[in-house]
This record gives sequence, C-alpha cells and structure tokens, in this order.
Amino acid sequence: MLPFARISIIGLGLLGSSIARAVREAMPNAALSGYDSDSETRETARALGLVDDISDTPGAAVTDADLVILCVPVGAMGAVAVSIAADLPAEALISDVGSSKANVLAALTAALPNHAIIPAHPVAGTERSGPEAGFASLFHNRWCILTPPEGSDAAKVAQLQAFWEKLGANVEVMEAEHHDLVLAITSHLPHLIAYTIVGTASDLESVTQSEVIKYSAGGFRDFTRIAASDPTMWRDVFLTNKDAVLEMLQRFSEDLTALQRAIRWGDGDALFNLFTRTRAVRRSIIEQGQDDERPDFGRADH
Amino acid sequence: MLPFARISIIGLGLLGSSIARAVREAMPNAALSGYDSDSETRETARALGLVDDISDTPGAAVTDADLVILCVPVGAMGAVAVSIAADLPAEALISDVGSSKANVLAALTAALPNHAIIPAHPVAGTERSGPEAGFASLFHNRWCILTPPEGSDAAKVAQLQAFWEKLGANVEVMEAEHHDLVLAITSHLPHLIAYTIVGTASDLESVTQSEVIKYSAGGFRDFTRIAASDPTMWRDVFLTNKDAVLEMLQRFSEDLTALQRAIRWGDGDALFNLFTRTRAVRRSIIEQGQDDERPDFGRADH
Repeated sequence: MLPFARISIIGLGLLGSSIARAVREAMPNAALSGYDSDSETRETARALGLVDDISDTPGAAVTDADLVILCVPVGAMGAVAVSIAADLPAEALISDVGSSKANVLAALTAALPNHAIIPAHPVAGTERSGPEAGFASLFHNRWCILTPPEGSDAAKVAQLQAFWEKLGANVEVMEAEHHDLVLAITSHLPHLIAYTIVGTASDLESVTQSEVIKYSAGGFRDFTRIAASDPTMWRDVFLTNKDAVLEMLQRFSEDLTALQRAIRWGDGDALFNLFTRTRAVRRSIIEQGQDDERPDFGRADH
Repeated sequence: MLPFARISIIGLGLLGSSIARAVREAMPNAALSGYDSDSETRETARALGLVDDISDTPGAAVTDADLVILCVPVGAMGAVAVSIAADLPAEALISDVGSSKANVLAALTAALPNHAIIPAHPVAGTERSGPEAGFASLFHNRWCILTPPEGSDAAKVAQLQAFWEKLGANVEVMEAEHHDLVLAITSHLPHLIAYTIVGTASDLESVTQSEVIKYSAGGFRDFTRIAASDPTMWRDVFLTNKDAVLEMLQRFSEDLTALQRAIRWGDGDALFNLFTRTRAVRRSIIEQGQDDERPDFGRADH
C-alpha cells in the first residue's frame, strides 16, 4: 500500500525534482503530476520525464492529487496556495518543503482554511538550483521535520511520515516555532555568516579578488559553497524567520566579540579552550552519520 | 638534480608527515631526517617509516641538513629554532610551513641571525592532526607562498620554489605582511567564525545539543569540520597575526550588522543582491581548480 497514490509537486527545482526522482524510485506505482511557474523549467522537467504530467497551470496539476507538496520559496507559499485553492480536492493533504515553518503554516492556513495542512522540512539540499540539480538519494538518512498544527489528524501525520520514510528520510515531529529556532542555529545563521564573509572578502581593497580565490583552500572556499545557494530561497528564509535568526545572530555576535577581545588581549587560554571544545561536536555529527568522516569531506578522495 | 639532498623535518604532524611522504614520492633519492617533541609521535613516525632517521633531539636531526623545515605551531617556532641553533650547518636553509609569516620571520631571525631564512606557507591541510593524518598528495595544485625577507639570495628562493613545485604546489612569492593580510581573510577569519558558531550552538538552552547534531546537514556541519582543526596551531595563528585578523574581523562585523539591519527591517532587496553577488566567487574558485565542482563537495558521490 502506498501512503499516497496521486502526488502533485508544485515547484520543480532542486527539492521538487529530487522528490519526483525519489518517488519514482521508491513508489513507482504512484501517479506524479507537477507544475513550475517558470516555463523553461517546465520544458526541462518534461524533457527529463520527471513526472507523468506537467501542467501549464498550478490548478491543473492538483485536480486529482491526494498529496500536494509545495516546493517553492517560502515567501511564495501563500500565493501558490491561493492559485490552487479552487482546483484542490477536498480530501487532499497539503504539505511543503520550506525552511521556515511558522510563517508557512500561517500563509497556507490563510489560503486554504478548509484543508488538512501538515508543513514539512527535509533538512537536505546542495548549493545547486533547478530541475537538473535534483537526485533521488538526496533524502537518504537525512532528517525530515513535520510540524503539524494543533488538532491535526494523527492518521494524516502518520501517512506523511510514511511517505518521507519511503524516500529514505528519518522523520521527527515538532512544533513549528521550535523548528524555526532549531533551524535558525543549524542552517539559517550558518548561511547568513557564509554570505557575509564572502561579501566582506569581495569588498577588500588591500587584498585582491584574485588572491582571495587563489588562497581559498585555507578555509574560505568552504563558505563559498554555502554562499552559492539560491538567493530567492534564502532571502525568503531570513524574512520569514526573522525573530529566531536575529536571536541567534545576537548570541553569535556576543561570542565573536568575546573572542575578538581574547585575541586583542592575547588570552591564548580562552582561545585554546574553545577550540578544544568544538572538536567534540564534529565527532558526534560523524558518529550519527550526518557527515562524511573522510578528512576534508572526502574532497580529495585520498 | 634535487633542489636539496638532505632534508630535515622538525615536527611530524599533518604537515610534516605530508612533506615526508611527498618527498619520498617526488624525490626518492633525498635523505630525510626528522624530529618531533612528542615521543609517541616519534614512535609512530618510526613505525610508519616516514623518514630515514628519527632523532631523539632536535639538534641531532639537523646536523647534516641542507634544508630544515619547521612544521610546528607558529608560537613554538622561536624556541625550536633556538634548540637547533648549535647543530645547524652554516649553509643550511631554514624554512617552515606556518600560517602567519611576519611573526615567524621575526622569531626565526632572532634565533638564527646568521642563517638563510625563507619562510613558506603551503595553503593546504585538513581538519586532522598527527603523523597518521598526512598524505603525499596534500600539496597537489595547492598554492605555497614564500615570504623571503629583503636581501634574500635569489638562488636560494629559486631552490625552495623548485622544492615545493616538485611536491606538486604552485608557488607565489610575496612580502610577509601582505601574506598575513591575505590569509587573515582567506583562512584565519573563516576559522575564527567557524569556531565561534560551533561554540554558540553548543551553549544554547532553547535548542539541545542533540538537535544541533541531528539537523546539522542544513549548513552547520560544514563549520564543524573547520572547527575540528588543531587547537594549538590555531591559538598560535590568532595570537601571532593579531592585527590583520582584528582588521578583517572588524570589517566582517560591520557587514554582518548591515545584514542584521536588513533582516530586521525586511529589506529583501539588500539580502537578494548580496546573495546573488556571492555566487560568482564560488564559480571562480571552481574554475581555478581550488575546490571540487561536485555539489556538496562531492560528499554523497551522486
């Protein structure tokens, strides 16, 4: 038995196209429909055969669906939900893959007050964008967080959980507000910092752009990967998870100021103690299968 | 003809042991001696056969050398140089692999006023430490920066350049002060920021350590790799390149504050513009062969 028989994917970028590919692999009998607001993306998706049927309007893509997954920037969720409202079957479950959740839940609820809505966030991705960037194994052994609103039908939550588990994900259920706090530190602040330092390095007069690029293997290049992520997606994340991001940013800035002071006053012990403490976090992440244990992410495959 | 016939490596951690392995491969006829202040490391190096001869004192390791490379934390350079001074042949060239250069040059010059000193910094490494972490290809297509003091013998600079090129590196020559500024932005600040955010994430009350680890694939895990680097090495880098690091840190903090303000006031255009600009830097780094072009550093090998 499939958790869902007719799945509609709205937005066929990295995430949407990865879900399509993963469904094909894990649930070959499920019917897949799709839509993207960009006509070029629709053409590419057709050429790739990502889903059974690519519609030219969002409404046409959802008429038969029992699960609709919105894979668009979080700032676009409300408008997309409005655009499918008239064609959406009454019993269809609405979900998404957005990186902020309280805001998305509010937008979807406002647009579709009579539908079952269970927001979801698969914590997975790469720095690439577009339908060609997706791949079926993106969710393997990654966590997918469901944030059902109070009063959600437990059977529907279980059904969505089964869907994500079939795609290879581990599923966790939590409140949208807690999700937003957790992701603010594990994902949103890291992206903000990466974007910032790449910007800072680009604006120097004393060090040329060419030098920054040549000597990037000293650490900087790691940040450029994250800072190559989709600009629209990330703009929306920061605008829709403002409070949690600002809270984490404030803590980070305080800690950075403390280190700045330690450097200025030559307090080697303070530096050494922090640098020792942070090693253990890396070990835990590797032990729990959340990163490659090979040195340097296995870049060199030595 | 070998650039150097008898090479002595003081300090047999990640860098020292990688040089030993790379010399074995590229210059099998060169004689290699070595020393490490840690007796366990000496034992491991003997068991691995890293060099022809591991001495039990630093002086004994350099008596025959025509090139001595100090591969110790930058804060230890001066003391190590003093410890070999009495045994060092008059014509031996002294170099190192430290990540800050003006301070190292001063320390080495004070300890060995009558020797030729040409500091060097191969911009290469991983987050691992110790003699077993090294590998021969570490320097392939990485940049090695030489910072010869004014009045250096051009023939000796060329000789050291030939040595590093034989190990697979591209060589650049610049002044120590400029090196320190360039590396402050491309390496030192990235490490400082990574250590900070991992510390910040470890100290939260609202988000558990276990959540930070579970959801680290959203971006945070990238920072933990850098923050797993050697604590002693990095403490010394910040203490010996204080001015340049504080200057870059000040610029970064200003830029971060500007982004913080953009988030608080909902200025999506400011965010979008920066996030678009930073993508180009990543492209250049990949085009110039300084990082893996595969998505996510090729972690998943999809």
